[in-house]
Amino acid sequence: MEKDIQKKKTLTLSMPALVEGGYNADIPQAPARVSVLDRWMARKLMDLLGDPPLSFVLWNIEEISSSAAKPMARVHFHDSEALHHLLINPALHFGDLYSVGRIEIEGELVRFLETAYRAAASSPKYRKLKKAQTRLFNRPRLNRPADSRDNIHHHYDIGNDFYERWLDREAMQYTCAYFPSPDLTLEQAQRAKMDHICRKLQLKPGDRVVEAGGGWGGFARHMAKNYGARVRSYNISRQQVLYARARSVADGLERNVEYVEEDYRKMTGEYDVFVSVGMLEHVGRSHYRELGDVIHRCLAPHGRGLIHSIGRNKHEPMNAWIEKRIFPGAYPPTLREMMDIFETHEFSVLDVENLRLHYAKTLERWLARFERHAKDIEASYDSAFTRAWRLYLAGSIAGFTTGSLQLFQIVFSHGTNNDVPWSRAHLYRDS
Amino acid sequence: MEKDIQKKKTLTLSMPALVEGGYNADIPQAPARVSVLDRWMARKLMDLLGDPPLSFVLWNIEEISSSAAKPMARVHFHDSEALHHLLINPALHFGDLYSVGRIEIEGELVRFLETAYRAAASSPKYRKLKKAQTRLFNRPRLNRPADSRDNIHHHYDIGNDFYERWLDREAMQYTCAYFPSPDLTLEQAQRAKMDHICRKLQLKPGDRVVEAGGGWGGFARHMAKNYGARVRSYNISRQQVLYARARSVADGLERNVEYVEEDYRKMTGEYDVFVSVGMLEHVGRSHYRELGDVIHRCLAPHGRGLIHSIGRNKHEPMNAWIEKRIFPGAYPPTLREMMDIFETHEFSVLDVENLRLHYAKTLERWLARFERHAKDIEASYDSAFTRAWRLYLAGSIAGFTTGSLQLFQIVFSHGTNNDVPWSRAHLYRDS
Repeated sequence: MEKDIQKKKTLTLSMPALVEGGYNADIPQAPARVSVLDRWMARKLMDLLGDPPLSFVLWNIEEISSSAAKPMARVHFHDSEALHHLLINPALHFGDLYSVGRIEIEGELVRFLETAYRAAASSPKYRKLKKAQTRLFNRPRLNRPADSRDNIHHHYDIGNDFYERWLDREAMQYTCAYFPSPDLTLEQAQRAKMDHICRKLQLKPGDRVVEAGGGWGGFARHMAKNYGARVRSYNISRQQVLYARARSVADGLERNVEYVEEDYRKMTGEYDVFVSVGMLEHVGRSHYRELGDVIHRCLAPHGRGLIHSIGRNKHEPMNAWIEKRIFPGAYPPTLREMMDIFETHEFSVLDVENLRLHYAKTLERWLARFERHAKDIEASYDSAFTRAWRLYLAGSIAGFTTGSLQLFQIVFSHGTNNDVPWSRAHLYRDS
Repeated sequence: MEKDIQKKKTLTLSMPALVEGGYNADIPQAPARVSVLDRWMARKLMDLLGDPPLSFVLWNIEEISSSAAKPMARVHFHDSEALHHLLINPALHFGDLYSVGRIEIEGELVRFLETAYRAAASSPKYRKLKKAQTRLFNRPRLNRPADSRDNIHHHYDIGNDFYERWLDREAMQYTCAYFPSPDLTLEQAQRAKMDHICRKLQLKPGDRVVEAGGGWGGFARHMAKNYGARVRSYNISRQQVLYARARSVADGLERNVEYVEEDYRKMTGEYDVFVSVGMLEHVGRSHYRELGDVIHRCLAPHGRGLIHSIGRNKHEPMNAWIEKRIFPGAYPPTLREMMDIFETHEFSVLDVENLRLHYAKTLERWLARFERHAKDIEASYDSAFTRAWRLYLAGSIAGFTTGSLQLFQIVFSHGTNNDVPWSRAHLYRDS
């Protein structure tokens, strides 16, 4: 197995890390006995989570249930070490143990995660433990320019074809869609999201647009093609930039869209519009003022700006497993924290919209497509990679539906600019 | 003159304070001579303001002009002391000196103030002076319950008939109106504002609403009459509560609207909706967490909340003159500061709308009506009172048009509540 992992090192993100962390996908040949200590630990874990409607099935099929209602999911532990690890740091170890199959969920994964999140959020004991663990173990990756390159490479350069399997085919939007009506397809909802942002920015032909963190370039192409904008899009993911350039050539848009493989801190020029969709999560809290400086430098006096980012209602460290295995250096800020971007240069915040439930719906669509391709993904990568991504997508749904994650779209302008939309009615007029 | 002031003590707000502060409305019989020092001071003041397109006319008709463009207004100083006072603390003394007529503006007052505000805001010297003055002299009034009563009495209990002269007649809304179309009348725009808020709150028949700071009760009546809500409205201004009760009896609404003469901190009960329009400015920064506690205690799990408040792009102390003479204890917070209300209990901010330019338009309408009644107001109160209020209204317009003031409407819910509007499209559908 380990040879296999080495071979796939550039493509998989979970397995090398898991092995590094001391895990092994093979379930240990532990004795089937459940000790008094094991039982005590299982009860302790249940208690820590605030006694949610779940049950734990131990490796000898013994079941430890919540005293509350009928369990809505069963957590199967394949060995005693898995239970011990989970008790030490549930937020971190659950992801790894689930990925390698040493923990299995019987029941609907998203519903299970929602139940666990809600229970943990309202359990004072769990909150206390999490605080202590954060203090002791939380060492999020930094986001100086060189770190950012590593962090972004880790997530976005694992293969464009992987993302193509479950994102929308048209624009490869790896950010929250907007569903004016909940029954739209993913493609329609991503298009609606892009149009919603363009309307918020009152985008018009000839506008000079700068984009920070352009992903696979779909939004830049959308602005150029449908609004006549001239777009310069910055991104430090090499694979994404190569993909974006190829697509813009194929679409005959290369005169209006320029993809720059460079850090947002290196932006130059003056623009009518600044836009950033889903990059702020990777900027890192200590760099928000720098981002504000960049915007101040590049945005024309009459310019409009929009930042779209995952956020929180209250400061909380990033989920340890996601930060470690999926998104190194990522952090969803509170509105208070985001104000670091805007206050120094007295930008005026014009409009904030919270699209939390739209992100849950977007993720549901992604997860459904992911599941349709799960076998292929497993064949191309491996089982632990596939399970890790399933958990990450399902856990993100649960984060948005239980209110631990938010999605903020913030429109802003220079504080002295009176050339701003008079109201928001134009966003909702049929085009 | 002083006897006159004593007589009017309960009604006027400016004159007793002015006399207390050492001012005198009578222009001193100063020698008409302009000294070298006076001239130096006038130049210094011009320089401090960053050389705006203004000119200063001294008491001997000598004119000191900006080196910049043609002056767009002239500031007439009637005596040398007025000039000296102004140089010491422009933000504080300008208001007093203008009120008693020792400074006159030749030209349009609002345009003059906009020019001065813009110039001061971009003058590093002025910013430095203001910072020092704030540190030395700024002692804003506190807002413990007893202080709040005094502060609110100072502003809101100066006579309902005074406010009736220039606010909208229907609902006596002393807060920013909403102009879906800029040519609405004040009455239409205040109605549109109330409907906009009710739509944001998805108000429906039978909803239990609690209002913090209900003014003359017009919004509570609107919610009861047009949406079938049952409203309890808290206010500590005695005159406003008496007025509100009389109007609700006259309208036959006393079964659905209850006006409570009590501090917001004393709220009890559970409600589907919490709403506060224009009270936060009087709450005081150190009490935002307390306000959050009150909302947390009173808002049902599925409840919706809205706070409407003047705000800032960046922390800045209240204008010293306004705080001293017009609105003791008032402070317009930044969005960052407002987050103190929401974060402790993990409320989810769903929607923020900045209606800054709508407040400028509202104030223009108020000022126009005020001017139509200026003679009556002067007869009932006095000249200094009238001039102080003219300056306050004109200065507020300039604050909103130059971007030093914002108007935020914030919609929120408990963080765990998924029963929130799916989008904002319903706000803009024709009813």
